[in-house]
Amino acid sequence: MDLKALERLLDAYRTGEIDKTQAAKSIKDLHYEDIGYARVDHSRATRQGFPEVVFGAGKTREQVVGIVEHLVKHAPNILITHTDEGTFGEVRNIVTEAEWHESARLIRIRRDLTDLGVGEIAVVTAGTSDIPVAEEAALTAEAMGNRVKRVWDVGVAGIHRVLAERSLLQSARVAIVAAGMEGALPSVVGGLVSVPVIAVPTSIGYGASFGGVAALLGMLNSCASNVTVVNIDNGFGAGFVASLINRKYEPPKHTN
Amino acid sequence: MDLKALERLLDAYRTGEIDKTQAAKSIKDLHYEDIGYARVDHSRATRQGFPEVVFGAGKTREQVVGIVEHLVKHAPNILITHTDEGTFGEVRNIVTEAEWHESARLIRIRRDLTDLGVGEIAVVTAGTSDIPVAEEAALTAEAMGNRVKRVWDVGVAGIHRVLAERSLLQSARVAIVAAGMEGALPSVVGGLVSVPVIAVPTSIGYGASFGGVAALLGMLNSCASNVTVVNIDNGFGAGFVASLINRKYEPPKHTN
Amino acid sequence: MDLKALERLLDAYRTGEIDKTQAAKSIKDLHYEDIGYARVDHSRATRQGFPEVVFGAGKTREQVVGIVEHLVKHAPNILITHTDEGTFGEVRNIVTEAEWHESARLIRIRRDLTDLGVGEIAVVTAGTSDIPVAEEAALTAEAMGNRVKRVWDVGVAGIHRVLAERSLLQSARVAIVAAGMEGALPSVVGGLVSVPVIAVPTSIGYGASFGGVAALLGMLNSCASNVTVVNIDNGFGAGFVASLINRKYEPPKHTN
Amino acid sequence: MDLKALERLLDAYRTGEIDKTQAAKSIKDLHYEDIGYARVDHSRATRQGFPEVVFGAGKTREQVVGIVEHLVKHAPNILITHTDEGTFGEVRNIVTEAEWHESARLIRIRRDLTDLGVGEIAVVTAGTSDIPVAEEAALTAEAMGNRVKRVWDVGVAGIHRVLAERSLLQSARVAIVAAGMEGALPSVVGGLVSVPVIAVPTSIGYGASFGGVAALLGMLNSCASNVTVVNIDNGFGAGFVASLINRKYEPPKHTN
Amino acid sequence: MDLKALERLLDAYRTGEIDKTQAAKSIKDLHYEDIGYARVDHSRATRQGFPEVVFGAGKTREQVVGIVEHLVKHAPNILITHTDEGTFGEVRNIVTEAEWHESARLIRIRRDLTDLGVGEIAVVTAGTSDIPVAEEAALTAEAMGNRVKRVWDVGVAGIHRVLAERSLLQSARVAIVAAGMEGALPSVVGGLVSVPVIAVPTSIGYGASFGGVAALLGMLNSCASNVTVVNIDNGFGAGFVASLINRKYEPPKHTN
Amino acid sequence: MDLKALERLLDAYRTGEIDKTQAAKSIKDLHYEDIGYARVDHSRATRQGFPEVVFGAGKTREQVVGIVEHLVKHAPNILITHTDEGTFGEVRNIVTEAEWHESARLIRIRRDLTDLGVGEIAVVTAGTSDIPVAEEAALTAEAMGNRVKRVWDVGVAGIHRVLAERSLLQSARVAIVAAGMEGALPSVVGGLVSVPVIAVPTSIGYGASFGGVAALLGMLNSCASNVTVVNIDNGFGAGFVASLINRKYEPPKHTN
Amino acid sequence: MDLKALERLLDAYRTGEIDKTQAAKSIKDLHYEDIGYARVDHSRATRQGFPEVVFGAGKTREQVVGIVEHLVKHAPNILITHTDEGTFGEVRNIVTEAEWHESARLIRIRRDLTDLGVGEIAVVTAGTSDIPVAEEAALTAEAMGNRVKRVWDVGVAGIHRVLAERSLLQSARVAIVAAGMEGALPSVVGGLVSVPVIAVPTSIGYGASFGGVAALLGMLNSCASNVTVVNIDNGFGAGFVASLINRKYEPPKHTN
Amino acid sequence: MDLKALERLLDAYRTGEIDKTQAAKSIKDLHYEDIGYARVDHSRATRQGFPEVVFGAGKTREQVVGIVEHLVKHAPNILITHTDEGTFGEVRNIVTEAEWHESARLIRIRRDLTDLGVGEIAVVTAGTSDIPVAEEAALTAEAMGNRVKRVWDVGVAGIHRVLAERSLLQSARVAIVAAGMEGALPSVVGGLVSVPVIAVPTSIGYGASFGGVAALLGMLNSCASNVTVVNIDNGFGAGFVASLINRKYEPPKHTN
Repeated sequence: MDLKALERLLDAYRTGEIDKTQAAKSIKDLHYEDIGYARVDHSRATRQGFPEVVFGAGKTREQVVGIVEHLVKHAPNILITHTDEGTFGEVRNIVTEAEWHESARLIRIRRDLTDLGVGEIAVVTAGTSDIPVAEEAALTAEAMGNRVKRVWDVGVAGIHRVLAERSLLQSARVAIVAAGMEGALPSVVGGLVSVPVIAVPTSIGYGASFGGVAALLGMLNSCASNVTVVNIDNGFGAGFVASLINRKYEPPKHTN
Repeated sequence: MDLKALERLLDAYRTGEIDKTQAAKSIKDLHYEDIGYARVDHSRATRQGFPEVVFGAGKTREQVVGIVEHLVKHAPNILITHTDEGTFGEVRNIVTEAEWHESARLIRIRRDLTDLGVGEIAVVTAGTSDIPVAEEAALTAEAMGNRVKRVWDVGVAGIHRVLAERSLLQSARVAIVAAGMEGALPSVVGGLVSVPVIAVPTSIGYGASFGGVAALLGMLNSCASNVTVVNIDNGFGAGFVASLINRKYEPPKHTN
Repeated sequence: MDLKALERLLDAYRTGEIDKTQAAKSIKDLHYEDIGYARVDHSRATRQGFPEVVFGAGKTREQVVGIVEHLVKHAPNILITHTDEGTFGEVRNIVTEAEWHESARLIRIRRDLTDLGVGEIAVVTAGTSDIPVAEEAALTAEAMGNRVKRVWDVGVAGIHRVLAERSLLQSARVAIVAAGMEGALPSVVGGLVSVPVIAVPTSIGYGASFGGVAALLGMLNSCASNVTVVNIDNGFGAGFVASLINRKYEPPKHTN
Repeated sequence: MDLKALERLLDAYRTGEIDKTQAAKSIKDLHYEDIGYARVDHSRATRQGFPEVVFGAGKTREQVVGIVEHLVKHAPNILITHTDEGTFGEVRNIVTEAEWHESARLIRIRRDLTDLGVGEIAVVTAGTSDIPVAEEAALTAEAMGNRVKRVWDVGVAGIHRVLAERSLLQSARVAIVAAGMEGALPSVVGGLVSVPVIAVPTSIGYGASFGGVAALLGMLNSCASNVTVVNIDNGFGAGFVASLINRKYEPPKHTN
Repeated sequence: MDLKALERLLDAYRTGEIDKTQAAKSIKDLHYEDIGYARVDHSRATRQGFPEVVFGAGKTREQVVGIVEHLVKHAPNILITHTDEGTFGEVRNIVTEAEWHESARLIRIRRDLTDLGVGEIAVVTAGTSDIPVAEEAALTAEAMGNRVKRVWDVGVAGIHRVLAERSLLQSARVAIVAAGMEGALPSVVGGLVSVPVIAVPTSIGYGASFGGVAALLGMLNSCASNVTVVNIDNGFGAGFVASLINRKYEPPKHTN
Repeated sequence: MDLKALERLLDAYRTGEIDKTQAAKSIKDLHYEDIGYARVDHSRATRQGFPEVVFGAGKTREQVVGIVEHLVKHAPNILITHTDEGTFGEVRNIVTEAEWHESARLIRIRRDLTDLGVGEIAVVTAGTSDIPVAEEAALTAEAMGNRVKRVWDVGVAGIHRVLAERSLLQSARVAIVAAGMEGALPSVVGGLVSVPVIAVPTSIGYGASFGGVAALLGMLNSCASNVTVVNIDNGFGAGFVASLINRKYEPPKHTN
Repeated sequence: MDLKALERLLDAYRTGEIDKTQAAKSIKDLHYEDIGYARVDHSRATRQGFPEVVFGAGKTREQVVGIVEHLVKHAPNILITHTDEGTFGEVRNIVTEAEWHESARLIRIRRDLTDLGVGEIAVVTAGTSDIPVAEEAALTAEAMGNRVKRVWDVGVAGIHRVLAERSLLQSARVAIVAAGMEGALPSVVGGLVSVPVIAVPTSIGYGASFGGVAALLGMLNSCASNVTVVNIDNGFGAGFVASLINRKYEPPKHTN
Repeated sequence: MDLKALERLLDAYRTGEIDKTQAAKSIKDLHYEDIGYARVDHSRATRQGFPEVVFGAGKTREQVVGIVEHLVKHAPNILITHTDEGTFGEVRNIVTEAEWHESARLIRIRRDLTDLGVGEIAVVTAGTSDIPVAEEAALTAEAMGNRVKRVWDVGVAGIHRVLAERSLLQSARVAIVAAGMEGALPSVVGGLVSVPVIAVPTSIGYGASFGGVAALLGMLNSCASNVTVVNIDNGFGAGFVASLINRKYEPPKHTN
């Protein structure tokens, strides 16, 4: 729960700006709002440092737009992933700052540009086809207040390409590496840097790549000790965790 | 490559303490030593902030001891994982500070106790049977200079147990969560804290747990966005990455 | 076989209302009717407390409608699952009470509203996208004479949402929990209540969710002892079993 | 939390029988006791109608015995599954009523024999080799206050065998069916009865049975609508849920 | 190689009806014809008792028609499976006797109606949705000179339905049983009859049926000893083998 | 049920040889005997042409011997598969004709040597390591009254070896082909003969053979249309079905 | 890096043809060109004897054309695989020699026809449906300077077809064998020849072929020792490696 | 068939050294010898350039020794893989030149040391634990007349280690790369050299390495085009194919 918003509400009640019923309803809504098909979770910003992201797949366009309408009142920055341009059209009617990112198929609302990171986040791909997933990671990290460096198409079969970017990689606070096929790049990057590497298997490949399973297994079995893994094509998750790693550390506030 | 060690060698050569052949050999060895069955990698300390860990499984006892003999000259802290008490006996003959940790089946040499972290690392298990894997993570994190908090047996079927540790979890810089069976605990912990959660699936369970696959899949599909995953039973990897996340951040030195 | 229907037939025969051939044919049909591509099973109502449900997928529209035409003479309540709105149009021509449920893609004929349960059935989802499957369960349970409580979008990553519904859950005779992704919610609900929990894995998720396999495995390995599992997306099955659990218990009649 | 135990403690405190420190510690322990490697969960009896069962596999003998020592003070009936005769020896030193069940490899302490069920539970196996798993289910159900009927070796390849037990099956409140190989028996039993059937796949079989996976898949895909499934070889879980289904229904107490 | 055809050719050559080059080419073609994209195998009739079937999937329409043009000169009966109505249109232009079977998606040319079997072949399905696969089997068996009995929709959840057909099943020389979902019907039929049962798993089902894998595994693990299995949806293969089993046995001719 | 045995019993009762209670018990036992842990199925001989085989794995030695004691009174020929030499020792105490077959790990009692087949059964292996499984098939077929030809070690990598046995293969009524690794031999044999081929995948191989799965899949996908498949290592099943195929065909008796 | 191209550049710089900035940029580009979404790798010709192939799937048409524009300046022969006819239209606008191969869905630019091989490459298929994959291999091998012999439709179920091509196969320097379904042909060819066999599993088949997995496993487990395997449908890879095997061997130049 | 051996036999027959029966038997044995449990294939030397290797696993010690006794008369060099030291003891009694290789668990008889290769074969491992598999490859290649270079422990997490061996790798005619865990090394080596790379996945790893499956999938999906793959742990196969690639090419003899 957002402490400042709570204090504002209590003030408004004491000054008679809102009555008791309104106050009670509003305080409850600070926690989460039940809008029937979803419980919009406004306390997550406090708990996780970022408003709820909307996962578009499996929801109707009306549901997505409805959730955004509720989020937009509390959160400056919002992401809608796995969505389409038609939904973007409707979202832009609500929030004019909404941006459409075609390759990542993602809507981003970014009204707060504060830099929250201690360093930079490197986002790397093995091939050209991995860029959409990597862009999802990069756009997420930017929306969460980070500076991002993009390094595309440096797969291991031409090892000189990634070696050429060694300095860039070694200067980042955390690296995200997206790769399909055999998913070997995170191991190589992991061996070059001394920071955490977040590996994102992509579903790029064919035959025995099994929609990203080969890359996923490769990354889970990485011989580099600094590699952790997120779900196949989960660029958002990688960008999210990288942001938390890069965030300026402050002692916790011990509230709920 | 360790710059100070290199400078010492160059000085020794100029002062005639060592001759040219010795100097060349020693400089090369700073990089890595080829001891036949293994290339002991002394430059990894610079690259990753920690000496090579020895993965004991699949190596003969002689090989493990031989590798340790070479590592021990350069590295204050060493881990040998997936090993046995007999190997410990021989390692202790070389390094008296070696400790044997029965439950994690791990030998630890910890001669440098400097605190390198900015906060604490919470290590959590769902059940009693997950403790050996979690201990591997905790012992690794300590060996890499971190303060660790252990929270055992707070699985989701008795949700009040993990809620009771909410403050402890929320005050950590990073959390490691080890769970077998359905592997649901990282999602719950992930929802309670605003820092990265490293999920470690364990091979605990039976039937359709498939040696940890059920837990692994559960964690990869976590609905909490701050969860990343390491390999089944890979406590070491979780402890390693958590240490890198917790490490005080300094601008990179841009050398090779 | 329905004893009352049998007695009526025998009476009709004795009073000469129907002749011997008609009587024999009708008695046989009480058991099941062979309509070529299907054997419509009227004795199932006696055996299982509910008429045959029609699984629409893999049948032509003509077959579905044909089966319904035979069922509708014997059974007040009928479900057609995995069907489409076009089929609904034709079914409504036969039975005007037919209802179309878009999200569950299900046709329901509900002409008998008797309450057959001892308590209530709670139907719960982890996310918004799981609602279609949960609705199938809820609609089934209602058609079988139960009072149903719906609880949507209380997934484990925001654990306060499910805790907020604790009383509602604890007052049910049985709970159905639908979840995709890691499928962790049944374990948490299972730990909160002392009644059976029927877990329904949904095919919601992506990447390594493998169309619901991750959720299925999570539920099969649940650390809560009161959880049983049905097939992926099988809302109907969950609603069916929950209805049997909630049914008023009467000593069996020991007939065939 | 056990309300009666709480009241006793408060009385004891008021009468001075115990001091404040003791009272506080005891009240906290009513909830759960943290004994280092485990949190023994005494409030589960209230929440689920049964004390915690101890899953023996993956725990040392010392841990199992330690947990039992704490449970035995609060719970009349206790189960230790997946254990061995050596552990039984030590448990019997603590609780003389402990029984050893060789085929199920289970220790049972059963000091409260109250009948808590409304009807009987039928436990059925397809073959002789499935008996150990079915016994685990039957012993669990008895320990939870149920009358159990055992029906062994009525697999589908000799369909007359299960048909011969039709009356017995149809008079039960709930049926548990354990089968390995193709796991077809639950579907047949499901078609014969009008109560819930809990299917337990066993790891019996060879070749493409894959340790019970074939049976598990068969049961999940059962064409009988009243079948739900538990994990491979999970006799305990089946007995537990069957007990909850058979339990006399009372309106919930709405406490936490 | 067809001995009679060979003798005719040799006669034609001796009488001067064809010259040496033609004779050589024709004799070679009796063995197989290389038509570029395919080697049409005319000697298979001798080797297997039936001309080559054309598997339509993965071939262009031109290729299918081209192969049929070559087969039609040597073989009275031909099957084209996994094809479509458009291809049927073109095949009928070549052979007017061609029949289109919509549900099995199969073209059949049946110009030789000789009865080659010693008994009848029973073709059985568990459900209505399994009929297309079963029809493929039945049509194949008929094309190979067998009398076929069709028994549809007698799945195990209503066991009285298959028991009602016991006499029919027990009078067949061989039974084909097609079933999806859990695939249990072959085991039950296997237990009722004393002849071989050929089980055909179908891809009917959803969720954890995995496109027929659950049924396939169930059938491979059948507890009835007289069951063998063919590939998922392979009605043709089942009909083919059943025909060979039902064929009047004659001592082999020992030629190539 | 054995009609002759039944008539004998009825006679004995009428003549007063046995009283009514004995008669009832004996008639029931003709059907099957319930000996507690097993229902010994004497009516199977009528239903399937062979007495029940005892699958030894998963049964205690006492159970195996107990079942044999009951079978031996009704059946001249009995097989106990997946057993050991110790059990053989005890079985020989009951039936002196029992034979121990080390490579197949099978006990055979063969007191009736009548030839029941119309032709011969060829049993073929790809390699030396497949012999134990093939022997199980051959021994079964012999026990069921067949003449068997064994052809060992003719795998496809030396195709001349199987071609050298072409005549032998082409003179059989049915062929059993056991192969591990890639399981290709059944396809080649299937192309050489015009009778049914029963393919038995064996668990021989390593790495990606996955305990016989590679061979199983190869056989299920055989491009030869006359191949059906049994479970991995299921020599018994293959021998059983081959015997039914080879059996002299008689019109069915239409009894139950 | 291409040494001759480098020397030309250095000459051009010395003679003033190009200035220093141009020289530096051009030298760097000899290595690889970074065009934003891709790093076009011109040094690969030196490293691997062939210019980069463009894998079309997962790239936009603009990206494919852009990459080709850069490659075409340095490489005489180029392949674009997994592409479509629309892309071909645009590529032909850039390079008029571009050819479209419909069955393999591949664009080939072949301007250098030098024969680089020591012998011939045989490309073989099991069936007609495997031709597209085999054509990809054959077209690749030709583009890399090899003579190719095509042998289509000689699958193992008609073993005489492949035996008829024995001489052709035995005269090749290396054989490529493409097969779907059970994938047995490489083992048979492997047994007939004494040169390397490259097996290409194709996704042809249905049911338990699992999109080529059955064929892939069959090939990996081949009992012929001279078989290696590439990914499912990877005709390009097979043609590439076969070309390297067939290449005239010259001592390496030891440059980077 | 060995032409020289055949000529010698025919001479011996004409000179009366052997009689007709002996001649016929010996000629047949030149092809293969049927020794009951195996058909020892002496014609393979002609067909594949090497005598049959004996795969020890799944054969009794007597069978292995028996096969060797027959091979040793015709072949100078023999390999027995997957065997043990006890078998070695018995083999050495027959052939004194037999060598025991502990790490590869392989017996080698190497009496012909002729160099048959055009260049060298590089054998590379990612880790120390992969050495046994790589040794099997190296020993095989040597037995087939090749010079071998061993490069151990150059896995990708320390990329400088493999770069340091670049010249050695680039001077080989073919490279074998053995790796477990994620199996990434073949891709990197493949990118560094312009010759074929044979990738051998090893079963080294734990958790989600699934006994080598992760490495196998990684290698099949390699982004380096010059990589082909053999079965998990199949060092022998890799050494065999590498030998055929390295063999001096001669035009084929076109005999059978």
